Amino acid sequence: MNKNRLEAFSDGVFAIVITLLILNVKVPDVHITNNVQLNHIIFAALPKLLSFGFSFLVIGIFWIAHHRIFSFAKVVDTPLLWLNLVYLMFNALVPFPASILADNFFLPTTILIYTGTLFLISMMHFIILEYIIRNEDVKHGALTKSVYRSAVRSAIFSPVCFLLAGASCFISAYLSLFFIICALFFSIFIIGKNKVSKKLIAVAKEEAAP
Amino acid sequence: MNKNRLEAFSDGVFAIVITLLILNVKVPDVHITNNVQLNHIIFAALPKLLSFGFSFLVIGIFWIAHHRIFSFAKVVDTPLLWLNLVYLMFNALVPFPASILADNFFLPTTILIYTGTLFLISMMHFIILEYIIRNEDVKHGALTKSVYRSAVRSAIFSPVCFLLAGASCFISAYLSLFFIICALFFSIFIIGKNKVSKKLIAVAKEEAAP
Amino acid sequence: MNKNRLEAFSDGVFAIVITLLILNVKVPDVHITNNVQLNHIIFAALPKLLSFGFSFLVIGIFWIAHHRIFSFAKVVDTPLLWLNLVYLMFNALVPFPASILADNFFLPTTILIYTGTLFLISMMHFIILEYIIRNEDVKHGALTKSVYRSAVRSAIFSPVCFLLAGASCFISAYLSLFFIICALFFSIFIIGKNKVSKKLIAVAKEEAAP
Amino acid sequence: MNKNRLEAFSDGVFAIVITLLILNVKVPDVHITNNVQLNHIIFAALPKLLSFGFSFLVIGIFWIAHHRIFSFAKVVDTPLLWLNLVYLMFNALVPFPASILADNFFLPTTILIYTGTLFLISMMHFIILEYIIRNEDVKHGALTKSVYRSAVRSAIFSPVCFLLAGASCFISAYLSLFFIICALFFSIFIIGKNKVSKKLIAVAKEEAAP
Repeated sequence: MNKNRLEAFSDGVFAIVITLLILNVKVPDVHITNNVQLNHIIFAALPKLLSFGFSFLVIGIFWIAHHRIFSFAKVVDTPLLWLNLVYLMFNALVPFPASILADNFFLPTTILIYTGTLFLISMMHFIILEYIIRNEDVKHGALTKSVYRSAVRSAIFSPVCFLLAGASCFISAYLSLFFIICALFFSIFIIGKNKVSKKLIAVAKEEAAP
Repeated sequence: MNKNRLEAFSDGVFAIVITLLILNVKVPDVHITNNVQLNHIIFAALPKLLSFGFSFLVIGIFWIAHHRIFSFAKVVDTPLLWLNLVYLMFNALVPFPASILADNFFLPTTILIYTGTLFLISMMHFIILEYIIRNEDVKHGALTKSVYRSAVRSAIFSPVCFLLAGASCFISAYLSLFFIICALFFSIFIIGKNKVSKKLIAVAKEEAAP
Repeated sequence: MNKNRLEAFSDGVFAIVITLLILNVKVPDVHITNNVQLNHIIFAALPKLLSFGFSFLVIGIFWIAHHRIFSFAKVVDTPLLWLNLVYLMFNALVPFPASILADNFFLPTTILIYTGTLFLISMMHFIILEYIIRNEDVKHGALTKSVYRSAVRSAIFSPVCFLLAGASCFISAYLSLFFIICALFFSIFIIGKNKVSKKLIAVAKEEAAP
Repeated sequence: MNKNRLEAFSDGVFAIVITLLILNVKVPDVHITNNVQLNHIIFAALPKLLSFGFSFLVIGIFWIAHHRIFSFAKVVDTPLLWLNLVYLMFNALVPFPASILADNFFLPTTILIYTGTLFLISMMHFIILEYIIRNEDVKHGALTKSVYRSAVRSAIFSPVCFLLAGASCFISAYLSLFFIICALFFSIFIIGKNKVSKKLIAVAKEEAAP
C-alpha cells in the first residue's frame, strides 16, 4: 500500500467525520410563525452548537496528530494498514458520542462515553507510533533517536489525561472537563513547539525551497 | 504540514459541506396517491431549493477565495494550520443557518444567524491573509507588495458588507439581501478581474506550457 | 485555478453525491419481531433500491462525461470555474429528485422534475464544452478540429433526449423512460467507441508506457 | 481515464460509505432527565455499534482488496471503468443492509440481504480481476503468471464463503456468521502473507528507496 494513498484515504475519512458533526445540530421540524418562536428554538440549539465546535476541534487535533505520526513512517506495511483502519474506525465513531454530548452535557454516562472514545483514539496514536518506531523496515531513517523518544513521550500524555477525565466523571463533570482540556492544550501548544515539530517544519521548508 | 495536503483536506471539507446542503431539501414522509398532492409538496419545497442554490454558490465563492488566499503562502506553519481549522469549522457550520433560512426566509433572527456565519468566514479570510503577509517565512516571495495590498483591500470588503447586512435586518430583510448580494457580486466579478487574479492566471498558464 | 485541483474538487462532489443517494433508502423505524414483518418492509423498500441504482449509474455517467469534457481544457480560467460550479450544483441536486422518484415512480411531476434535473446537467455539459472550444487560451492544442466537432455533436444528443423525455411524461411514463434510456445508452456505448475516446485512450497508454 | 483519478474517486466513495455507517447509530430523540435513562438508551444502541464496527471493517477489507486488484492494471479502459462503477454501487449499498443488521441481528432475511451484498461485492472483485488478467492492453507486464494465478485463486474464496453464509441462514445464524468470518479472516491473514502481497510490498519499498 502506497503511503500517499493511505494518507489521502485517512484525510477523506477525517474530512467527512468532521463535517458530518453538523448533522447533529438540527432545529426541530415545527412550523414557525414568528421571530420569538425562532429565537427559542435557536437558543435551545446552543448546546448542540457548542458540542459541534468542541468535537470539530478535537477531530482537527487528531487529524494533525495523525499527520505527525505518519511522517515518521517511510513505507506502510500490512499491520500498519490495519492499525490505521482501526484508528479511523474510532474516529468515525465520534459523531455518536458528540450527539449524546449535545443533548446531555453533564451526565456521568455522557462523559464516560465521550472520554472513552477519545481515550481509544489517543491510545491508537501511541500504539501506531510504537509500531512504527520498533520496525526498522517501516520507520524513517532521517530522524534521530532523541526525536523518536520525544514523540513517544508526548503520545502517552493524552491517553492518560482522557483516562483521568473518565475516572473523575463520578466526582465532578468540571474535573473531567479540566483533564480533557489539559490533553487538548498539550496537543496544541506543547507539541507544536517541541523538537519533533521543528524538525518537520524544517523538512517542509527545505522541500519548498527552489 | 505539507501545503498540498492542507489544501486537499480543505477541499474535502468544502466538497462535503456543499453537498450536504441538499439534505436540507426533503419532502415530508407522507403517502402520496396522486399528482396534485405531489405538486403541492414540490411547491412547498421551493424555498428550500432556493436556499440550497444560494448557500451552494456562497460556499463555492468561499472555496475559490480560500484557494486564492492560500496561493499567497509558500509553506504552512502551525498557526496557519490552526487558523485554517477554525476557518473550516465556520464553513462546516453553514448547513445549520441554511436549514433555518430554508424554513423562515425573512425573519430577523434567520438573517442575523446567516449573515453572522458569513461574517465569521469572511473575517477569517482577512485574518488568514494578514497572517500570511506579515510572516516572511510563510509568504510567497514571487508576488509584489502592490499585489498584496490589493488582496488585503478586497478581503476587507466582504466582512463589512455582511456586517451591514446583519445590522440592517431590523430595518428590512431586502436591505440585508442587498448587502449580501453586494459582497457576493464583488467576490465574483471584481476580484476575478483584478491584478491578483491576472497574476495567478499567468502563473497557471506558465505551468501548463510545455 | 489549477486544473488538477478543480478536477479533484469536482470528483469529491461526485463521490459524495453518488454515495449520499443511499440515505434515501431507509427502512421505517418500527420495532420488528419476526421475519415476515421484515420481508414486508424490505419488499416495500425495493422501489427505493431501484431508484438508488438508477441514479447511481446516472451520476456515474455524468462523472465520466465531466472527465471527458475537461480533458479538452488545457487550463481553467474564471468563467470555466463558475460554469463548473453551477454544473456541480445541478449534480448535487440529484438526491432530491431521486428521493421523489423512489416514492412515486410514474407520476408526471416526478418524471418532469427528474428529467428536468438531467436536462440541466447535460445542457451544462454542452455549454462547458462550447466554452472550452471557443477559447483559444483554454482549449488543448493537441486535439484536431474534427475531434472537437465530434465531441460537440455527441454533447447535444443527451439534452435533446431528456427534453423529449420530459415532454412525453404527459403521454406515457414508459415513453419518458425510453428517451432517458436512449440518452444513457448513447453515453455508455456510442461515446465510448468514437474518435474522441480512442484519442484519449491512446494518450493514456502513451503516459503509462515506460 | 487516468488510473490515478479512478483510484482517487474510488477511495472517495469508500471513505464516504465507511463514515456514513455511523449515521445508523442514533439515539432516539427523547428528552432525558437522568443518568439511568441515558444508560438504558446507550445499552439499546449497543447492537447498532456492533453492526457499525463490523461493517466498517468489512468495507475496510474491501478497500484494501480494491487497491490490490487495481495494482494489477496498468491502464484503465472503458469496460474496466464501468465494472468499477458497478462495484462501487454495490459498496455504496452497504449502509442499507448494515442498518437492517443493526436492528434485527439474527433474522434469516437480515442475513440473506447482508451476505447477498457482500457476495455481489466479492464477485465483482473476481470479475474485475479476471477482466484485467485477460486483457493484454490493461494488465501490468511486470507481474509473473504464477502471481496472477495466485490472485485469482484467492479472489474466488470470498464469494464462495458468502454464498455458503447466505445458504446456511435457514439452518443457523451462527453457521452463517462462521462463513462470513472465514471470508474476512482469509482476506486479512492469508492474502496479507502470500506471494502477491510480498511482490507488492517489494515494489513499494523500491519506490520509497532513495
